[in-house]
Amino acid sequence: MLESAEIGHKISKAVYAREEPKLREALLNAQYDLSRSGNGPVLLVMSGVESGGRGETANKLTEWMDPRFIRVIAFGPRTQEELARPPMWRYWRVLPPRGRVGIFMNAWYNELLTSHVQGAIDDARLVTYMQAIGGTEQMLTDEGMVLLKFWIHLSKQEQKARLHALESDPRTKWQVTRDDWRAFRLYSKSHQLWERVLRETSTGVAPWYVVEGADERYRNLTVGKILLGAISNAISVKATAPKRSPTPPAPSVIDNIKLIRDLDLTKKLPEKAYESNLPKYQGKLAKLSRHNRFADHSLILVFEGVDAAGKGGAVRRVTGALDARQYVTVPIAAPTEEERAHPYLWRFWRQVPARGGITIFDRSWYGRVLVERVEELCTPNVWMRAYEEINDFEERLVQNGAIVVKFWLQISKAEQLRRFKAREKTSFKTFKITPDDWRNRKKWDAYEEAVCDMVDRTSTEIAPWTLVEADDKRHARIKILKTIVNRLARALKR
Amino acid sequence: MLESAEIGHKISKAVYAREEPKLREALLNAQYDLSRSGNGPVLLVMSGVESGGRGETANKLTEWMDPRFIRVIAFGPRTQEELARPPMWRYWRVLPPRGRVGIFMNAWYNELLTSHVQGAIDDARLVTYMQAIGGTEQMLTDEGMVLLKFWIHLSKQEQKARLHALESDPRTKWQVTRDDWRAFRLYSKSHQLWERVLRETSTGVAPWYVVEGADERYRNLTVGKILLGAISNAISVKATAPKRSPTPPAPSVIDNIKLIRDLDLTKKLPEKAYESNLPKYQGKLAKLSRHNRFADHSLILVFEGVDAAGKGGAVRRVTGALDARQYVTVPIAAPTEEERAHPYLWRFWRQVPARGGITIFDRSWYGRVLVERVEELCTPNVWMRAYEEINDFEERLVQNGAIVVKFWLQISKAEQLRRFKAREKTSFKTFKITPDDWRNRKKWDAYEEAVCDMVDRTSTEIAPWTLVEADDKRHARIKILKTIVNRLARALKR
Repeated sequence: MLESAEIGHKISKAVYAREEPKLREALLNAQYDLSRSGNGPVLLVMSGVESGGRGETANKLTEWMDPRFIRVIAFGPRTQEELARPPMWRYWRVLPPRGRVGIFMNAWYNELLTSHVQGAIDDARLVTYMQAIGGTEQMLTDEGMVLLKFWIHLSKQEQKARLHALESDPRTKWQVTRDDWRAFRLYSKSHQLWERVLRETSTGVAPWYVVEGADERYRNLTVGKILLGAISNAISVKATAPKRSPTPPAPSVIDNIKLIRDLDLTKKLPEKAYESNLPKYQGKLAKLSRHNRFADHSLILVFEGVDAAGKGGAVRRVTGALDARQYVTVPIAAPTEEERAHPYLWRFWRQVPARGGITIFDRSWYGRVLVERVEELCTPNVWMRAYEEINDFEERLVQNGAIVVKFWLQISKAEQLRRFKAREKTSFKTFKITPDDWRNRKKWDAYEEAVCDMVDRTSTEIAPWTLVEADDKRHARIKILKTIVNRLARALKR
Repeated sequence: MLESAEIGHKISKAVYAREEPKLREALLNAQYDLSRSGNGPVLLVMSGVESGGRGETANKLTEWMDPRFIRVIAFGPRTQEELARPPMWRYWRVLPPRGRVGIFMNAWYNELLTSHVQGAIDDARLVTYMQAIGGTEQMLTDEGMVLLKFWIHLSKQEQKARLHALESDPRTKWQVTRDDWRAFRLYSKSHQLWERVLRETSTGVAPWYVVEGADERYRNLTVGKILLGAISNAISVKATAPKRSPTPPAPSVIDNIKLIRDLDLTKKLPEKAYESNLPKYQGKLAKLSRHNRFADHSLILVFEGVDAAGKGGAVRRVTGALDARQYVTVPIAAPTEEERAHPYLWRFWRQVPARGGITIFDRSWYGRVLVERVEELCTPNVWMRAYEEINDFEERLVQNGAIVVKFWLQISKAEQLRRFKAREKTSFKTFKITPDDWRNRKKWDAYEEAVCDMVDRTSTEIAPWTLVEADDKRHARIKILKTIVNRLARALKR
C-alpha cells in the first residue's frame, strides 16, 4: 500500500493556483450543506510518518473551511483521568456531532503503532486491538459517521531530506525535535508494521487513503479532494431511513418467552428477615466499596424493568450504603438535542466511571432493544446490530476493570395494575404515573418478547443479567443487594 | 448563629406523618413549575458537622422529588485534572442548568474550613478566599440562581452521642469511620471558625440556614420547607427582565473614544521585514511554549476586533508555531441551548486550559460588553456588572498561573469597506461576509464607544489589552506575535 506513495507525486504552482480556489469554494459549500442536512459527521483520522505534513494539512483544511463547523483535536499522552477509563473513552467524549467535520491527530492508530514499535504490546495484542478498532469503526459508520483514515507518507530518503532541510534553515530549525530523529531511525523497522496494520484495518466502511506528503501542494489538494467527496457522500444519504428494512431479521431463539414467564413471582421475604438482611448486606456493600482493591475496579449497575417494578426504591437501598463522593446515579430519559447528534452509545460512554467509581444507570443503553424496538423508533436493522454493539461496549468496560451488574425487575400484570392505581391515589406519587405507562402496559406482550431477546443475546459471562422477581419489594431489594455483594466479593478476591 | 441549633429541636412522629406527604406533593409540583418556567436553577450547598445528617437529608430530598430534575454532586479529593485549573473550575463545570435543582455536597465551604483547621491556609488567605467566594455567589445569583447554603449542625454532645449510637448497632457500625472521630476531636477548635465563616459569608443574596441535625424528622422537614420556599421564589421571578433599567448607569470615563481614534492605522511593515520577522517570532514562541517552566503556566489568548480586521489570519500565524496537542482554538458564536441555560461565564470556564495548555479564543467573554451591549441583548445593569465579573474571572485565571493576553484589532472604516467588497468578489471568501457584517458597520460609533469602555474598564495590570493597528496585516501579525513572546518570556523568567 505504501509504495505508490513513495514515487514523488508533485503538483505545479500553476495547477495549484488554479485548483485551490475552486476546491476551497466547493469545500465551504459542502460544509454548509452538511450542516443543514444534519448528516454525518465526517471524521478524518490523520496518521502517518513523522514530519510527513499531517499537521500542516490539518491547518490548511481549517484555513480553507469555516472554523465554526470543523474542529481539530490532537491527542497527547494520556491524562490520569483518561488512564482510569477504557482506552477508547477519550475518543468517544470528543466525537464531532452530526453536521460537522472533525480531524483527529495522533488518535488510535498512532497509539497502536507506537506501542508495538516500542515493544509495549506483542503481536497477539496487536491483533486484538485491531479487531476492537474495527468493531468501533463499524459501529460509528453504522450510526452515520463518514470515516476517512489518512496515512500521510514519506519514503525514507524523503523523510531524511525533509528533516535536514528544516534543520538547516534557521527559521524552521525549531520544528525538528529529538523525537523526530528517533522516529526516523526506526523507519525501516516500522515500515513493515505500517504496511500490515494499514492492510488489515482497511475496510469497506473505513478504507485507508495513503497520501504522499513530500509535495505540499499535492498533499493538500489530494486530502482536500478526498474530503470533498466524502462530505458530498454524507450529504446525499437520505436523512430518513426506511422505517422497516425489507427483510426483518429473525430473532435467534424462537419461543424464549419462558425466560420471563417461568419466574416465580410469588417469592416473598417476611418483614423481619428484611429488617435484618437490609443492614447486613448494606454493611457488606459499604465495606467492599471501600476496599483497597476496589481502586483497580469500577462498579456499573444497570437497572431495567417493567414500569412500576420498583427500580427507584431498589436503587435507593443500594446508594444508602455508598459514599456520596463515590457514586453517581444517571437517570436515562429521552436523549437531548446534543445526545441525538452523536452515535447512540455516546451518552453512555460519557458516564463511564473512573476506576474506584460507581455509576448507577436507572434505565440504560438497553433502551434501544426495548422501548426503541417496541415503539419502532428505530429499524430492526438498527436494534439487531445493537446487541453486538452493546456486548462489545460492555466488554470494553470489563476489560478495564469494571464490574457490570445488570438487573431486570419483573412484576406480574396484576401487580402492575395494583401499583398504578395506588400511585394515582397517593398525591405525591401521581407524578410517577403517566399516560405513557398505560400505553406501555397495552404492549405488555411485545415488551416481554423484547426483554427475552435482550436477556438471551446480552447475558454474557462477563456481564450477566439477573432477573429479579419484584412483586414483593423486600425480596427484590435483598436479592439485588446480595447479587451486587457477591459479584463484588468475587472480583475483589482475585 | 450556631447556638439556636444546639437546643434540641424535635418533631413528633404524628406531626411528621401529617406534614411529609403534603410537603412531598408541594415539592414535586414546585419542581415541575420551576422546570417549565426555565428560571433558577436552585442550588443547595450542603455543609455542616460530620455525621450531622447532610447525606441522609440529600437522599431524602431525591427520594421525595422527581429524580429527572434534581441532581446531587459530592466532591472528593481533587483530581489531577482539577488541580491543574483554578479552584472554582470543578464547581463551574457541574453547575445545574436553569429549571433544575442541584445539591452540592462537600463543596467550597468544606474545603475552606478543612484547609484552615488543618493549618494549610492562614487567616489572611481565609479572608481572601471568603471574598472570592462572595464574589462568585453574587455573580451566580445575579445570573438568576437561587443559592441556599445549609449548615446541618449538632452540638458537641449530640455528635458524640450520635457516633456512639451508630457504632453500638451492628447494622450501622460501618457508617462510622476513623475520619468521623478525628473530626469530633476537633469540634471545640472548629466551633469558633464555623461561627466566623458562617457570619462573614451570610449575605443578602445567599444567606446561611443553620439546621439542627439531631432529629431526622425535624431536619428533613426544615430543609424541605426552606427548599420549597426557595423554588417558589425562583418561579415567581419574571422571566423577561426589563429591556432597560430605569436609570442607565453612566460610563465611568466621558469621551475616552480617543483611545481608538488616536491609533495610528497607517503603520506598515514592509514585506521583506515581515518575511524575516514571522519565522523569527514563531521560533521564539515555539521555544517558549515548549519551555520547562511553561508547565507551571497556561496561555490564554483573546482575539477581539472589528469585523474583517483579520483575526483568523492572525490566529493562524500564532498556531503555526504551536504543537497541535498543546492548544485548542475556540471560536465563539451565539450560545447553544445548553450554554444559555447556564450563567454567562459558564461556557468560558469550561474551556479554561490546564497548566501547560494554551487556549485561543476567537471572540470571547467580551461579547457581553460589545455585541450584547450594542445590540441591547441584555440590560445596562447586566453589562455594567460584567466588567467586574470579567476582571474577577481573569484574576482567577492569572492566580492559577495563566498568562492572559488580549488583543483588540482595529481597522479604519475605509479599510473595512475595501475588505468587505473584496470578500464579496472572491468566491471562497464570500462566506466570511454576511448581512450581519453590514448591519454592524452601521453601528460603528456605538461599537467604538463600547470598545473604549471595555478597554478602559478591563485593561488591568494582570491582564492588559493590546490595541493592534490592523489596516496593514503584516504589521498586525508581527505585533501580535511579539506581544505574546514578550509576555511569555517575562512570565517564564520569574
